Amino acid sequence: MTAYDELMAFERETQALGQVAGRLGWDQETMMPRGAADQRSEEMAAMEGVLHTRRTDPRLEDWLGKAVASDDVAAANLRLIRRSVDRATKIPVRLAAEIARVTSKAQGIWAEARAGEDVAAFLPTFEKVLRLKREEGAALAAGTDKSVYDAMLDDYEPEATAQSLSEMFDALRPRLVDLRARVLAAEAPKALSGSFDEAGQLALSTKLALGFGYDLSTGRIDKAVHPFSSGSGADVRITTRTNPVDPFNCFYSTIHEVGHAAYEQAIDPAYRLTPLGSGVSMGVHESQSRIYENQLGRSAAFTGWLYGQMRDQFGDFGVADAESFYKLVNRVSDGFIRTEADEVQYNLHVLLRFDLERALISGDLALRDLEAAWNDRFRADFGFAVDKPSNGVLQDVHWSVGLFGYFPTYTLGNVYAGCLHQALRKDIPDLDDDLGRGDTRRATTWLKEAVQQHGGLYTPVEVITKAGGMAPSVEPLLDYLETKFAGLYAL
Amino acid sequence: MTAYDELMAFERETQALGQVAGRLGWDQETMMPRGAADQRSEEMAAMEGVLHTRRTDPRLEDWLGKAVASDDVAAANLRLIRRSVDRATKIPVRLAAEIARVTSKAQGIWAEARAGEDVAAFLPTFEKVLRLKREEGAALAAGTDKSVYDAMLDDYEPEATAQSLSEMFDALRPRLVDLRARVLAAEAPKALSGSFDEAGQLALSTKLALGFGYDLSTGRIDKAVHPFSSGSGADVRITTRTNPVDPFNCFYSTIHEVGHAAYEQAIDPAYRLTPLGSGVSMGVHESQSRIYENQLGRSAAFTGWLYGQMRDQFGDFGVADAESFYKLVNRVSDGFIRTEADEVQYNLHVLLRFDLERALISGDLALRDLEAAWNDRFRADFGFAVDKPSNGVLQDVHWSVGLFGYFPTYTLGNVYAGCLHQALRKDIPDLDDDLGRGDTRRATTWLKEAVQQHGGLYTPVEVITKAGGMAPSVEPLLDYLETKFAGLYAL
Repeated sequence: MTAYDELMAFERETQALGQVAGRLGWDQETMMPRGAADQRSEEMAAMEGVLHTRRTDPRLEDWLGKAVASDDVAAANLRLIRRSVDRATKIPVRLAAEIARVTSKAQGIWAEARAGEDVAAFLPTFEKVLRLKREEGAALAAGTDKSVYDAMLDDYEPEATAQSLSEMFDALRPRLVDLRARVLAAEAPKALSGSFDEAGQLALSTKLALGFGYDLSTGRIDKAVHPFSSGSGADVRITTRTNPVDPFNCFYSTIHEVGHAAYEQAIDPAYRLTPLGSGVSMGVHESQSRIYENQLGRSAAFTGWLYGQMRDQFGDFGVADAESFYKLVNRVSDGFIRTEADEVQYNLHVLLRFDLERALISGDLALRDLEAAWNDRFRADFGFAVDKPSNGVLQDVHWSVGLFGYFPTYTLGNVYAGCLHQALRKDIPDLDDDLGRGDTRRATTWLKEAVQQHGGLYTPVEVITKAGGMAPSVEPLLDYLETKFAGLYAL
Repeated sequence: MTAYDELMAFERETQALGQVAGRLGWDQETMMPRGAADQRSEEMAAMEGVLHTRRTDPRLEDWLGKAVASDDVAAANLRLIRRSVDRATKIPVRLAAEIARVTSKAQGIWAEARAGEDVAAFLPTFEKVLRLKREEGAALAAGTDKSVYDAMLDDYEPEATAQSLSEMFDALRPRLVDLRARVLAAEAPKALSGSFDEAGQLALSTKLALGFGYDLSTGRIDKAVHPFSSGSGADVRITTRTNPVDPFNCFYSTIHEVGHAAYEQAIDPAYRLTPLGSGVSMGVHESQSRIYENQLGRSAAFTGWLYGQMRDQFGDFGVADAESFYKLVNRVSDGFIRTEADEVQYNLHVLLRFDLERALISGDLALRDLEAAWNDRFRADFGFAVDKPSNGVLQDVHWSVGLFGYFPTYTLGNVYAGCLHQALRKDIPDLDDDLGRGDTRRATTWLKEAVQQHGGLYTPVEVITKAGGMAPSVEPLLDYLETKFAGLYAL
């Protein structure tokens, strides 16, 4: 065996163990008995310890020093393993295990605090998580010219920086604020009313998942509090949730998670259990989930088809025609919850979190002041007050599990989705004919070929640039939103 | 930290990883998408490799050499870790990983062969499994005076030997054969007829599980082809199955698995994630599942209560009274399937497998002759012919996953259950008053205190001897069966 072959055999086992650890996370959210939380945190910590030990195995340096890349795939594998080793060797085993242990427990404590609307009950745990993640960020930033926050960001979006994202977001914000103001000043369509049975929602949700290309032979759908996609290769699972009065929450959560899962399922099978075998970054991942959910799923053409499906499933639900349904699905209204936000306001939710978490990490914002800061910023951006913590600072799981630097990738994904959608529509001008029949195949095939199949072969900016035919820019997303909502609200 | 503390900290992580690997097995049987089988086998192999590496870590010898036991618990921990290290160091890493990989795939191939009634389709895989397990057994037997089969047996039932089991089984067989002949010559009660909806079966099955003390805060119930219990400590899961025309299959599978799971859940929480934190042997485990299922669950008193429950759940199902119901539940009739066999015939199914697997391992029986040997022996013991492989040699999953030496522990468990039941009835003479109300608490509490709480603290024979008040013997089981079935069949 060559050094490269030995390296890849070792890496393959590490990737397999990474899949096991990921599935343990899936189990925790879907299947785990409540009383198993403490034991589970020890199991997670032990898995994290094993993975960390492997990622810092001294043989890796040796293999990396000797390995020769015979092609682009090998070169990309070596680049990504190099990156992983560099990252892992900076983090002490003790710290990695401690983070796994604490965040596993923290998630349960967060869930209880959220259910009890009790921010104070979560703060001591949050303090621990923040301290450990800061320590990890500082270890990653040491010896580089990166800030602690940029080091964190690099975990989710390689090569992105707070500076570059801020510039992008600064270009986004004024036009979004302006669009939001104009839309909310216009007459809103009537909200959906009535109740939609869970079984019917789940049946149509599954139909949507299959329609968008989710492959159940290598996946499954379960319920969870916070929908997510999990796993790579031949075992990619999604979750959804139902709300009797809001079936769109279920349907669009499902389409969103299918965007993530279809990406993983579409990656060249030759890359399975290698560093190329999963989505290249959170931003590119989110570009897939968002283009599935919004540019395709919330389009006039597709919602026309969905309107008929909903009538088939639920009978007359009080919406007169497909045009009213399209307006309803894209209804812009005040709301607290990021994951339920419309396309116009969604990114404002993200920018709030991006600014607050940078301030938490830098120390400019103390944790005891976080709730007040959240509520102040929310009132400033959205014009009304947060009524309870589960609608405010406790609404997202991310911080409880130490995901700092993750939120901005949501908006980056939207920006990328804008670029991809512009190119997709240029290549397939009559796409709406398909979408009007509920047929997403030409669209999803285009995305598979342009983006998904490559896995980790290219960098995030490379793959978006190739696929979109231009350097990433906020213009396509803004143009799309302004055109779409000008039409919807007769602006 | 003392050497003992360091050893136990390391062992705790190993135990946690063992729980993760076990849960991966649970997932494979309950949740895994079909297309994930190949990837899963790599994941299992990687976990097995990690566990094997830890169990052969050179530091273990050092710690074991220096560690001092301060009490009985520490002494038992050291004894069990010593045993584990000795076992693990005899098995090459390559072989352990290969067995995990091959048996993971073999299980799927077995399931397909079973569904297709195609023994030949399974033989090449079975050949591989057998060869690898023989190699493992030979490695374990090397340097001892054990046979390959005894080395295998020791994995499931420490200190048991084929010789000791054969002697026990030889004392069992003539009286079982005689009892079977007399029972089958007598008039059989009418079989159950009608259909029982799945939801109703699962509802009553869950009620039974809770009634026998299964704790859902640290467990869960799912469906699987072959019911099993999985996990230790704070996460102990069971599965069940339903058959529309045979609700007893569901109910008594559930009670059986609850016997296993309640044992795990009852172990002193101080032993969690240590070598003492799981059931001490398969035989003792089976003694719990069988006493729950049979001596308690199929008693006249308990079935009297269950009769009312079934009428509540399903209405009039064509059984006139509690006495007829008791006869029905304990109906002895010809059947192919071990897991569905009555108390009289069950052990004859096990003895068949015990004899065949010893012959396979020794080489006295070639794999190509196994089906014929099974069918011949079945006809000799049961008096009629196997009609198809799923009713014969392909009915059990065990061999496909390499479990040789496991089957005899079922009968050993029945023998142990006989001993425990005799002692239990002596201690609680009015137990039937409780069981007649569906109240198993005094019985299960007795078992918890006498057996379950101790986990791995004592050896299997020690714990049964202490609890039963005598050295293990087949007499109590035979006396119980002969008395019970003489009454049922007016012999």
